[in-house]
Amino acid sequence: MAMSTFAIPRSVEWRETHVTILNQQKLPSIIEYIDLHTLEDVYEAIATLKVRGAPAIGITAAYGLALAALRYDTESLDEFRRRLKRDRDYLASARPTAVNLFWALDRLVTAAADALSVNEAKTTLVHEAIRIQVEDEDVCRRIGEHALSLFRPGERVMTICNAGSIATARYGTALAPFYLAKEKGIELSVYALETRPVLQGARLTAWELMQAGVDVTLITDNMAAQAIKAKGIGAIIVGADRIAQNGDTANKIGTFGLALLAKSFDIPFYVAAPLSTIDLTTKTGADIPIEERHPDEVTHIAGVRIAPEGVNVYNPAFDVTPNELITAIITEKGIIRGNYNATLPSLFTKEEQHETI
Amino acid sequence: MAMSTFAIPRSVEWRETHVTILNQQKLPSIIEYIDLHTLEDVYEAIATLKVRGAPAIGITAAYGLALAALRYDTESLDEFRRRLKRDRDYLASARPTAVNLFWALDRLVTAAADALSVNEAKTTLVHEAIRIQVEDEDVCRRIGEHALSLFRPGERVMTICNAGSIATARYGTALAPFYLAKEKGIELSVYALETRPVLQGARLTAWELMQAGVDVTLITDNMAAQAIKAKGIGAIIVGADRIAQNGDTANKIGTFGLALLAKSFDIPFYVAAPLSTIDLTTKTGADIPIEERHPDEVTHIAGVRIAPEGVNVYNPAFDVTPNELITAIITEKGIIRGNYNATLPSLFTKEEQHETI
Repeated sequence: MAMSTFAIPRSVEWRETHVTILNQQKLPSIIEYIDLHTLEDVYEAIATLKVRGAPAIGITAAYGLALAALRYDTESLDEFRRRLKRDRDYLASARPTAVNLFWALDRLVTAAADALSVNEAKTTLVHEAIRIQVEDEDVCRRIGEHALSLFRPGERVMTICNAGSIATARYGTALAPFYLAKEKGIELSVYALETRPVLQGARLTAWELMQAGVDVTLITDNMAAQAIKAKGIGAIIVGADRIAQNGDTANKIGTFGLALLAKSFDIPFYVAAPLSTIDLTTKTGADIPIEERHPDEVTHIAGVRIAPEGVNVYNPAFDVTPNELITAIITEKGIIRGNYNATLPSLFTKEEQHETI
Repeated sequence: MAMSTFAIPRSVEWRETHVTILNQQKLPSIIEYIDLHTLEDVYEAIATLKVRGAPAIGITAAYGLALAALRYDTESLDEFRRRLKRDRDYLASARPTAVNLFWALDRLVTAAADALSVNEAKTTLVHEAIRIQVEDEDVCRRIGEHALSLFRPGERVMTICNAGSIATARYGTALAPFYLAKEKGIELSVYALETRPVLQGARLTAWELMQAGVDVTLITDNMAAQAIKAKGIGAIIVGADRIAQNGDTANKIGTFGLALLAKSFDIPFYVAAPLSTIDLTTKTGADIPIEERHPDEVTHIAGVRIAPEGVNVYNPAFDVTPNELITAIITEKGIIRGNYNATLPSLFTKEEQHETI
């Protein structure tokens, strides 16, 4: 990718004989694309977080399974399905808690179930993997279109973490409106929080927006209030890990604090997420346990110790923003405002409930 | 200092033939005390930030000037005063914007002005330097006593940056109540924000509280809202760089956001600072320009790049918290609540206005 032309970075690309991924572990210092040729390559890339973001992981795994199946040297459909099942289980173990990973792999297995020949099954698997990526790009683009309608030209918008292109097929969720604005020649400015402890904002969001020529300014997390005041931030937009039926939203640690700041400054606070993030079996945010991660994430940065040995650490990985602080939830089906308890379930038809992740 | 016995760390100690300082540049990885024997040693320690915190810098400089003067090999008072003036100017240039530095040095020069002999002048200088340290410790202790009266036993209290013992003669300002609570056997817990970009909370506050056996938990800055909610934080206390006549308070970046969180959660937000921090010539916070520092502070941590090259950065060093968000300002003269415009000037007698920094 030439630095002189701007382009939205992609995390995964299908190349018929292999899959090319962006090595997100080395960003932003090194921009490295890796070719994955084997099932083992794909497993390793997912397990070592070279590819991250739920949709991007699902897409990569789907391509990995298709890649493996193309090489099954058998004409027996039974034998083909046995191998497919074995490789599906192997890839599914790369990240045991990644729901998207299981969903994408199972979608491939199901798609190939009705094939009448090994050749047909192979073609079906490749097409289904491509379809997963195309659909995700389409979902992200539609989220971006809806979100963009909420911003005025020239607006300065704040975000946290990386709900971006490299976490999805393309465009991302919270970052999608900025890419679409760029495509349409609309000026928007992004203020990206660095997002301690893992620094996804500094390492990933700042990088991918710069690659696409989007105006982005990096701040540390504790500069949010001052930046809103001094720079006239007009809105905040974030992604979501999980949205409960009542609209309560789990997302990267720091999101809840931003939502409170948005209320203090009387600016809108938006959540941008696909329908697949809405979990109707979770009634409210109180049902979402807050994962606590290893203290080393807080006491060390890039391998360097920055805090005393033995210090107590509280390291929640995410927080839950109560629905009353959320101005709107932006999905591929449109913009939902208030009364989420009634509105969110109505977005789903019975069929879609099965389709969603 | 043995690790098995707890003690409040001191930044500066007078040892008759030299000054011993804690090298704050190497904390928390290395606990190093350095003996300063010459004027040049003291200059270097101040210029390279081995000693930091306005009061601690003033105290160190005062000792440095006394140390130099003790060695002037003359019986002529005129010659003595010439050398004193030269060395005063030299030390004052170690950090050109440190008001406390000039104030402490000038206090020594003034104290020696009336001496009738070189020997008397030398004794006066040493005594005046010791007095500056003793007075600062006394001010911090009184701030701590007043602040402690605001906390319930067992309370969890949040703070940002390092308004601590090693920034002052002893005890600090915002941290003083925790040391006094420890002395009195009252349990308090501290939640310390790491305080990006320079990480004074992680590097200094967590360290010095641990040294004194105070219960401290480290969090990243974006965990504040979640910690207040999940851990039941009962109050927030911070130091101050400058307090305007109307109570608007300039302090480390992130303070303003914490004050807004305190309001959202309906918990008190306290500023602890000596009278010397109150600047009656600054009418409101709008008169305080926000210093912006080098982007490298944000894009690098411990020398390691964490953000893309060439990224735009906004790096305000501090922010201003409006008076209406401040529950009380705690000074050595007591606790001031509301109507700061009328109350703050009344704290000063004419004499004290000259005495203050």
